[in-house]
Amino acid sequence: METMGRHVIAELWGCDFEKLNSMELIEQVFVDAALKSGAEVREVAFHKFAPQGVSGVVIISESHLTIHSFPEHGYASIDVYTCGDLDPNIAANYIAESLDAKTRETIEVPRGMGPVRAGQPTVSAV
Amino acid sequence: METMGRHVIAELWGCDFEKLNSMELIEQVFVDAALKSGAEVREVAFHKFAPQGVSGVVIISESHLTIHSFPEHGYASIDVYTCGDLDPNIAANYIAESLDAKTRETIEVPRGMGPVRAGQPTVSAV
Repeated sequence: METMGRHVIAELWGCDFEKLNSMELIEQVFVDAALKSGAEVREVAFHKFAPQGVSGVVIISESHLTIHSFPEHGYASIDVYTCGDLDPNIAANYIAESLDAKTRETIEVPRGMGPVRAGQPTVSAV
Repeated sequence: METMGRHVIAELWGCDFEKLNSMELIEQVFVDAALKSGAEVREVAFHKFAPQGVSGVVIISESHLTIHSFPEHGYASIDVYTCGDLDPNIAANYIAESLDAKTRETIEVPRGMGPVRAGQPTVSAV
């Protein structure tokens, strides 16, 4: 298996409070995001924090998707890391839209290719 | 809860084949790494691939640790993301040593602080 991968790091701001606080919704969004990008889901683990916030991961054959949500700040910290021919932006875009993010800051880090370098950050309205 | 976090992305090369191929060992190393850094472990999910390789995550109260191992390349792709006062390098150093990594390339990405920027990469022998 090739080591090469694409790791999208995205900061979502202005997200919907209730969505960021619903573990069931986030878990479904993340599984759907993985499937929409063509990934094969292997493990799903999410955790709801008190009084608010959700953390979780979907392990896919092609690496992983993670989230940490901070409903009180409208903020979700997400990672979409894919190997092979998958495009991590398909899942990241779907997640940003599903959580009603108003802005998204993104960098992409190539993985498994030797010296690690981050690409240029982009900021966009969702 | 504050959104600010530290996300260490590390590429480990020259690791031991058998260690990279042992889900039990990797799971133990990751749980120990989380505990050594002072984190509170919430969820643990690992997956063994055929013919080789392990992916997994430890969700901690303070974010997460992940790995994707490629034993045939001596390569492990790891992420240690912590919020609060924890130092992600404590876990990353412990993991690199435990997997017998010969070299480690690292960048640190501040999370939840506004515009996302990666720090300067560092390359070091382990």
